[in-house]
Amino acid sequence: MTGPSYSVAEIAARFGLETRGDAATRISSVATLARAGAGQLAFLANPRYRSQLADSAAAAVVMRAADAEGHAGTALVAADPYVAFAKIAALFDPPPPLQPGVHASAVVDASARIDPQAQVGPFTSIGERSRIAAGAVIGPGCVIGDDCVVGEGCVLVARVTLVRRVRLGQRVLVHPGAVLGADGFGLAMDAGRWIKVPQQGGVVVGDDCEIGANTTIDRGAIEDTVLGEDVRLDNQIQIGHNVRIGAHTAMAGCAAVAGSATIGSYCLVGGAAGILGHLEVCDRVMITAMSLVTSSIHEPGEYSSGTPLMPNREWRRNAARFRQLDTLARRVNAQGKPARDKED
Amino acid sequence: MTGPSYSVAEIAARFGLETRGDAATRISSVATLARAGAGQLAFLANPRYRSQLADSAAAAVVMRAADAEGHAGTALVAADPYVAFAKIAALFDPPPPLQPGVHASAVVDASARIDPQAQVGPFTSIGERSRIAAGAVIGPGCVIGDDCVVGEGCVLVARVTLVRRVRLGQRVLVHPGAVLGADGFGLAMDAGRWIKVPQQGGVVVGDDCEIGANTTIDRGAIEDTVLGEDVRLDNQIQIGHNVRIGAHTAMAGCAAVAGSATIGSYCLVGGAAGILGHLEVCDRVMITAMSLVTSSIHEPGEYSSGTPLMPNREWRRNAARFRQLDTLARRVNAQGKPARDKED
Amino acid sequence: MTGPSYSVAEIAARFGLETRGDAATRISSVATLARAGAGQLAFLANPRYRSQLADSAAAAVVMRAADAEGHAGTALVAADPYVAFAKIAALFDPPPPLQPGVHASAVVDASARIDPQAQVGPFTSIGERSRIAAGAVIGPGCVIGDDCVVGEGCVLVARVTLVRRVRLGQRVLVHPGAVLGADGFGLAMDAGRWIKVPQQGGVVVGDDCEIGANTTIDRGAIEDTVLGEDVRLDNQIQIGHNVRIGAHTAMAGCAAVAGSATIGSYCLVGGAAGILGHLEVCDRVMITAMSLVTSSIHEPGEYSSGTPLMPNREWRRNAARFRQLDTLARRVNAQGKPARDKED
Repeated sequence: MTGPSYSVAEIAARFGLETRGDAATRISSVATLARAGAGQLAFLANPRYRSQLADSAAAAVVMRAADAEGHAGTALVAADPYVAFAKIAALFDPPPPLQPGVHASAVVDASARIDPQAQVGPFTSIGERSRIAAGAVIGPGCVIGDDCVVGEGCVLVARVTLVRRVRLGQRVLVHPGAVLGADGFGLAMDAGRWIKVPQQGGVVVGDDCEIGANTTIDRGAIEDTVLGEDVRLDNQIQIGHNVRIGAHTAMAGCAAVAGSATIGSYCLVGGAAGILGHLEVCDRVMITAMSLVTSSIHEPGEYSSGTPLMPNREWRRNAARFRQLDTLARRVNAQGKPARDKED
Repeated sequence: MTGPSYSVAEIAARFGLETRGDAATRISSVATLARAGAGQLAFLANPRYRSQLADSAAAAVVMRAADAEGHAGTALVAADPYVAFAKIAALFDPPPPLQPGVHASAVVDASARIDPQAQVGPFTSIGERSRIAAGAVIGPGCVIGDDCVVGEGCVLVARVTLVRRVRLGQRVLVHPGAVLGADGFGLAMDAGRWIKVPQQGGVVVGDDCEIGANTTIDRGAIEDTVLGEDVRLDNQIQIGHNVRIGAHTAMAGCAAVAGSATIGSYCLVGGAAGILGHLEVCDRVMITAMSLVTSSIHEPGEYSSGTPLMPNREWRRNAARFRQLDTLARRVNAQGKPARDKED
Repeated sequence: MTGPSYSVAEIAARFGLETRGDAATRISSVATLARAGAGQLAFLANPRYRSQLADSAAAAVVMRAADAEGHAGTALVAADPYVAFAKIAALFDPPPPLQPGVHASAVVDASARIDPQAQVGPFTSIGERSRIAAGAVIGPGCVIGDDCVVGEGCVLVARVTLVRRVRLGQRVLVHPGAVLGADGFGLAMDAGRWIKVPQQGGVVVGDDCEIGANTTIDRGAIEDTVLGEDVRLDNQIQIGHNVRIGAHTAMAGCAAVAGSATIGSYCLVGGAAGILGHLEVCDRVMITAMSLVTSSIHEPGEYSSGTPLMPNREWRRNAARFRQLDTLARRVNAQGKPARDKED
């Protein structure tokens, strides 16, 4: 597993960074400030870790100009060290080389079209009229149903399911266990029994999206469920049918969005946060972890719900009072009234 | 992909509806009021969309008699337009024709019995003593373990796992990634280490149930985990061991039910709601999204927990006060006491 | 399916228990007190079920000495009847015999090493440099990527994915749909677009861990995500990159831990509870269901957040007041001030 190695000067030239110290230093991997050793590059972005800099045995460190001032070692100077580090680290984690071709075990419908420059792994099945573009990688155990499109440079890591009518743009990365295009949850109660509302839409995923492990995105009831470009979904996220998510929005693990919600661009949704259906969230909204959005949000900003964590005994006392909160408020208001003129 | 087409008169006759306007109009697909065009059927159920009716280019619209009064176009009149639409839409989304037979790649234990009228897809394995009934479809990549039963007309879309002792009734629909019959989470602490409590029960799923993508239903510890008929579970739901769910209950995505809870019939459980173990919820209970049920519910009705969403700054101020709620209430009660006779 | 049978005397001898009544009674399976019949062993641990003891038709019952005092039937006496029952029940649920060898359909990279005493099921793929130890069982449909290690006696039930650099200790049990070693969710915003931070760490899982169905554990960004020995994770749990979980900690279904959190030993995390990233939770902390941990916890004990469940009408009234809680508290404090000297 000997990988590539680069000099600090080469790295600086490639990413437009300045250097301090010995630019001939060779780098062959990345590490944390605390653990880096010979040949390893670390980074300092969060001021909290500044104290680790002096003791670090890293061959070189990516940091801001201000941090590099008094630093004795070799440095790569970047306006945003985390972004620079991300780009540099990618040099040492190259994607496995594309191995074009369809594995002998794959089962491909005669009407499907697979570009000769696509890679299709073992135990994969591909349905009617589906198309796999050049440079796409379909890992082992994937199921691509009917009428799907996998764009150029997409990677379906392994065991991904595209059920029906799922169209991925270019360079979409989908992690194992994700299920895109399953039936939306559409039911109508008829004479005491549920009847299923057919789900005839699809799923459209924009370029450069990332879909986490075991995340589910249902296909639309009539029209499509749509993710704009560069949407980033972590693991175990649930996206209901007809949801629309704007470009560059990111959601942390276990977030859930109910059917027909429309979410803007550049939103950040915290872990296990919930968004109810048939509402709108505008651009640049941030929802903190485990909060529940129950109505539309029209102003950018950060929103929260929930209560703080406490020792259970304290929590029990306070939570019991939550049941009486309206009564309490009425009492306070009533008590306050005669005295109101005394308040400011 | 040219599909079936029907005249409005044929549709009306099939579902017992009345017509207005030109009953010879032919319908070949469904669409929303806003987007429907020639040959397309839309519906109007929610009064909110009534204003879209006049401008709709739909060939025909399913609606209530009252809405059809002044409508100039062709209408199908139904007491419940959404139910009628669901039934009509199914005409245009017929299930793929059954292709009986076992795919050459499937691995089937010699003791398993597969009806000649069942369809078993590629990369599927079927364990000892399991039985697949006529008309059942086992999609690609499914794993059916030992001692399972898949009833007539069931559809396991793809990559479904029935681990052990899972018995599905008739016409059960299971979406990709669902895992039924995994070990329940049974542990006992013994001398500082966990020991596993064997999980010897199974999972019994009634007729006409639907199980969403990546939903998990554990098998019972001693007896079975049981879903009554027509239970509808959305995606990423977790059902613990020994849970019992009554007929016609529906749960939205990411809901979770802990071990040995018993839930009644015709309940509605909102998204990401939680129900603790070893308790009972009676029939016709509705739990709103992200609420937590911590004790038994004996009265039908709607139940909730949680706090409303707010801008984060406001939320921080209010949430900090939650810590003092008991103190606050004691103070109010103490202040109120001398004044009590003045209150009503 | 006739299984093994044992006399009460044999069971007592094997597990160091005392007997009451007829120790020659033969036991061939286990059941609940309420439903046990001839040849079946039940247990009484929870005093709540003591009233069922007299009417039980169980052939023998595991119970505490005190409960056995007046009991007429056959008993196995144990200090911890639940632990004893768990051990005994395992006798009647033996694991299927190991069938060493690699299924003909499996796709194994030439550089992978599979012990001749390991069992590899159908439709499984094993990547470069990965190693499968003796006694390990890789069930059907698993994907083992590059640079993984599966230790002795591990069981990957079915459809488990180890993406890259995942190292399992000995006797680790992983349920279907679990995904270990997917990319952590590392992103940096660069000129209005997300760029991916390479995830170059791995996942290390200690001996005797159990990982539930559809649970996801991401691999570390630079260093590893680490589970100590005997960690028990239920279904649909999400563990972010760089998380460290101490030995013997158990988490119930749908819990989620964000990146770089460190959790101690012997913790108990309730269902759907959340733990934010970059914080520490000390040993022996218990988090109740659906609570959210937002900062480090330094004292052992039980912690909670959330509000109690109420009928929705009541909840609406009280929840609305939560928005005014800070105002309310200020008012109470203002009102209280002149009267303060009168309080104790």
